[in-house]
Amino acid sequence: MSARPENYPTHSLGHLEDAEHGIRVPVTQIAQDDSPTGTPNPPLEVYRTAGPGSEPEVGLPPLRETWIRDRGDVEDYAGRVRDLADDGRGAVRRGEASSEWRGARRSPVRSLEGRTVTQMHYARRGEITPEMRFVALREGCDVELVREEVAAGRAIIPANVNHPEAEPMIIGRRFLVKINANIGNSAVTSSIAEEVSKLEWATRWGADTVMDLSTGDDIHTTREWILRNSPVPIGTVPIYQALEKVSGDANALTWEIFRDTVIEQAEQGVDYMTIHAGVLLRYVPLTANRVTGIVSRGGSILAGWCLARHRENFLYEHYDELCEIFARYDVSFSLGDGLRPGSLADANDAAQFAELDTLAELTERAWEHDVQVMVEGPGHVPLNLVRENVERQQELCHGAPFYTLGPLVTDVAPAYDHITSAIGATEIARYGTAMLCYVTPKEHLGLPDRDDVKTGVITYKIAAHAADVAKGHPGARQRDDALSKARFEFRWRDQFGLSLDPQLAEEYHDETLPAEPAKTAHFCSMCGPKFCSMKISQDIRDEFGDEAAQQEIAAAGMAEKSREFRERGGTVYLPEPGVGVPVGE
Amino acid sequence: MSARPENYPTHSLGHLEDAEHGIRVPVTQIAQDDSPTGTPNPPLEVYRTAGPGSEPEVGLPPLRETWIRDRGDVEDYAGRVRDLADDGRGAVRRGEASSEWRGARRSPVRSLEGRTVTQMHYARRGEITPEMRFVALREGCDVELVREEVAAGRAIIPANVNHPEAEPMIIGRRFLVKINANIGNSAVTSSIAEEVSKLEWATRWGADTVMDLSTGDDIHTTREWILRNSPVPIGTVPIYQALEKVSGDANALTWEIFRDTVIEQAEQGVDYMTIHAGVLLRYVPLTANRVTGIVSRGGSILAGWCLARHRENFLYEHYDELCEIFARYDVSFSLGDGLRPGSLADANDAAQFAELDTLAELTERAWEHDVQVMVEGPGHVPLNLVRENVERQQELCHGAPFYTLGPLVTDVAPAYDHITSAIGATEIARYGTAMLCYVTPKEHLGLPDRDDVKTGVITYKIAAHAADVAKGHPGARQRDDALSKARFEFRWRDQFGLSLDPQLAEEYHDETLPAEPAKTAHFCSMCGPKFCSMKISQDIRDEFGDEAAQQEIAAAGMAEKSREFRERGGTVYLPEPGVGVPVGE
Repeated sequence: MSARPENYPTHSLGHLEDAEHGIRVPVTQIAQDDSPTGTPNPPLEVYRTAGPGSEPEVGLPPLRETWIRDRGDVEDYAGRVRDLADDGRGAVRRGEASSEWRGARRSPVRSLEGRTVTQMHYARRGEITPEMRFVALREGCDVELVREEVAAGRAIIPANVNHPEAEPMIIGRRFLVKINANIGNSAVTSSIAEEVSKLEWATRWGADTVMDLSTGDDIHTTREWILRNSPVPIGTVPIYQALEKVSGDANALTWEIFRDTVIEQAEQGVDYMTIHAGVLLRYVPLTANRVTGIVSRGGSILAGWCLARHRENFLYEHYDELCEIFARYDVSFSLGDGLRPGSLADANDAAQFAELDTLAELTERAWEHDVQVMVEGPGHVPLNLVRENVERQQELCHGAPFYTLGPLVTDVAPAYDHITSAIGATEIARYGTAMLCYVTPKEHLGLPDRDDVKTGVITYKIAAHAADVAKGHPGARQRDDALSKARFEFRWRDQFGLSLDPQLAEEYHDETLPAEPAKTAHFCSMCGPKFCSMKISQDIRDEFGDEAAQQEIAAAGMAEKSREFRERGGTVYLPEPGVGVPVGE
Repeated sequence: MSARPENYPTHSLGHLEDAEHGIRVPVTQIAQDDSPTGTPNPPLEVYRTAGPGSEPEVGLPPLRETWIRDRGDVEDYAGRVRDLADDGRGAVRRGEASSEWRGARRSPVRSLEGRTVTQMHYARRGEITPEMRFVALREGCDVELVREEVAAGRAIIPANVNHPEAEPMIIGRRFLVKINANIGNSAVTSSIAEEVSKLEWATRWGADTVMDLSTGDDIHTTREWILRNSPVPIGTVPIYQALEKVSGDANALTWEIFRDTVIEQAEQGVDYMTIHAGVLLRYVPLTANRVTGIVSRGGSILAGWCLARHRENFLYEHYDELCEIFARYDVSFSLGDGLRPGSLADANDAAQFAELDTLAELTERAWEHDVQVMVEGPGHVPLNLVRENVERQQELCHGAPFYTLGPLVTDVAPAYDHITSAIGATEIARYGTAMLCYVTPKEHLGLPDRDDVKTGVITYKIAAHAADVAKGHPGARQRDDALSKARFEFRWRDQFGLSLDPQLAEEYHDETLPAEPAKTAHFCSMCGPKFCSMKISQDIRDEFGDEAAQQEIAAAGMAEKSREFRERGGTVYLPEPGVGVPVGE
């Protein structure tokens, strides 16, 4: 087994238990030191998506397998015949894929003929599934809220019956804001092992779902490795692989090739798929006078196809058939916004909103099949236009979860687009976006490496968390308050442990005050060992810090108190010269 | 002369000219390549604060000297007698300061007895000063708008008569949002040369003002070096130096020592000073039950002083006298928020808002002396409470410029607080904050180094710019649109040149596609040489990209167009296998 993905010595794996239903939800327990007064600080239990840790060659245990089979509505079947072309032209040439998956292999399952196995279907029938119990425990909410929101389409639990390794996760505006990390191979620059390692890395830092956007060689096999090792739902964009199967000639794409690709991926266990069924032929000319045209890769493939054939988008034409497939595996739609704006200038324009109207129509059509849906959103949007995006989507799509890429609030900062987009992401999540797709510093410039993945995930954890706090989500501020209390009490190690990136926080601290004792010392690097504003505040609290004392002060004036204060602590601080630069005065 | 601080080969120093009044405002000119169609793209002129570049030992030329003297309302005078204690106990011990300033020395000036030399005073008398012309040219607005806003107190031009080297800069909600970078020495970790280099570095990346928060040795001499080399207004927090003069014993602080320090700094040329005159004795107990008490260093010094002596804050008591001094040098107040919240839990609480009431009172009192004022704001505030801060301040303080530190919208991400705070900074600026004090990744953890200063400045340029765009500030989106157009046209070098950090953007690009031709190639690293969504969009534009064509399409249906499209460009893209990972699908 690889080491458990703990980020800091004060972190450990704990569980929330629903003993009655045999459900255990992993959490990260963050231990804390006692306060200087001796009062203990209970460990904080925080949301965790890193899973139990896996040996990549073996894969994760199939947590949900009995849940799925106990419902009695699926069948094992032989599955689609494997085609070397699934792994691209390289595999065909070589006569084999590289790094064939050799871990656990289960035959695929699907619903019995005529049955629907989606969480939405169960929810609408009033059934509480173990998946719903799991997410309710995780979110700390009533399971009935979960069922209601899933039944209404306002939340989804992407949970393909062929991905039993994943821990259920809910995406919806009534729940914690989620974040997605994109990974994916490239023939030139990364291997299967690297992608599996990026998956582990992304979930270790808190990714709630991961999209495999591979377009390179060994696309099928890479996905197999990722699914078998992923404790989080996996999303894909099947048009990328379909395009590979026709050697990149988009005009040669057909519904049949696409359909076959969707079934291939559904059998592997992909939990949600981006489907650009809203890029309609008549919308394409609306993009012609944009500053940046069509920036979605899937969108442009389909726009090109529509124009070249002068036919309606085959995904739109065959949408009901897609719904029928998705219903048999519980694949969720992520309705792609192929016409999203790629620059501030194009935000909230006719093309974008025309497509959104169609995505709303498609949402309702999927719901007729009890298929789960989320809707993708932009992109690049000036901050003053961000809110309109989510409010319009929520209204038109009857509350179906919104899943946005940022948006970036300025175009002028390539290399910092994790930041430009985190600003827009926080704003859009605050008004109801359910999941945020991360953006890394390499956006627009190159392929994210391991460091970029980590920076993207942590930046988006910040955005999601800040939105949870702004929404007043129950308990969201607990971690902030714990960290601030630790800061006020000079419990340095607890500040690191409670932070989103304990190692980096500790490393930065140690650059200025490297000595080990400094971590428990009652001062910080800004003001040095003798002078400290927090120390003064503690003295004030000691003096005035309970209600009785405050009333007494109000009643008696402060003269006497002041005398006592001076006598007892006269020198509340004894600053030494030149001990540091306060960063904010 | 040190090299001109240009950030990229396509950048050069240009000037906006007001020949009639002999005013030249430096701008950075960013050259652009022609579009692929051959259409030229004019160079973009962008706001620049880097100054002409100085030789640190010599200092900058005194740009404003004749402007100041031509008004005929100042006198040269001997100035305060230099005291070795101005440079701290180290200098007293050694009998000298280190690195004594040996460049240009001008005798200090001040207003003639009974005269006021503030920009506000001139503005209220209806006078247009060269300083006002300079900022109007820089901001691209009418000079009468500048005069009106300064006269009304809604904008300030911090411009001490003893800092003639600085280029005038306006802070107010009707103008571009400004950013401040903090620097300052520390006995242990930095030298005077390092601080001067940080100053140059901060303005090179776009800092609009710089605060010298030195608390270490050689505090007077460090400030002299900084002022003589600074092309931007310099702010300080005089209480830090005053505290040094009483060997760090806050109880020994007196109005006389503080006053002497203010005059010392005013004679050197400090343009604005943080004055914590709103920390009133009766407010101190309001902080006792906070999670993080008083986190402002200045605030805690004064709170401690008030409590220990049971007397009212001497800054409040002697405020009118301070105004009289400021009026003689045109020092602007930055009214410090000594009781600002240091955690989400403490945001918008009684202590914070009580102090704000007093800051409003102090604003009006300064205006009675024609002294310029801005008001400082938080800190740590949940996103949903941010807007209230600026709206309340603007209302209570009659539109006096608000100057905020972030605010951070979550406490859980030390080491990423440039990001947590940029989110809040963009929000607060969008609703009217005029200047943002940067936060670096080291906030709460240690002392910012050169890299941190750069990261902080660029992150805050993003926040300020995104707010300008969101406010619909005239012309603010010009740079975004130019960059997006360059992106769409695959003008890679222009994308880098137009970005806030050209080198880093180019470096990230080159990690994936290092070959020189790639920079002009018509594809990007995300999709590789053959497939490209932007290429498809260009094909669409070629086909439908003018109004006539779009009407034709609408009229005739698209069948014929489609045939043409296929015939002419049938293969709009020829994707090769495995060429890359699209970061957003």
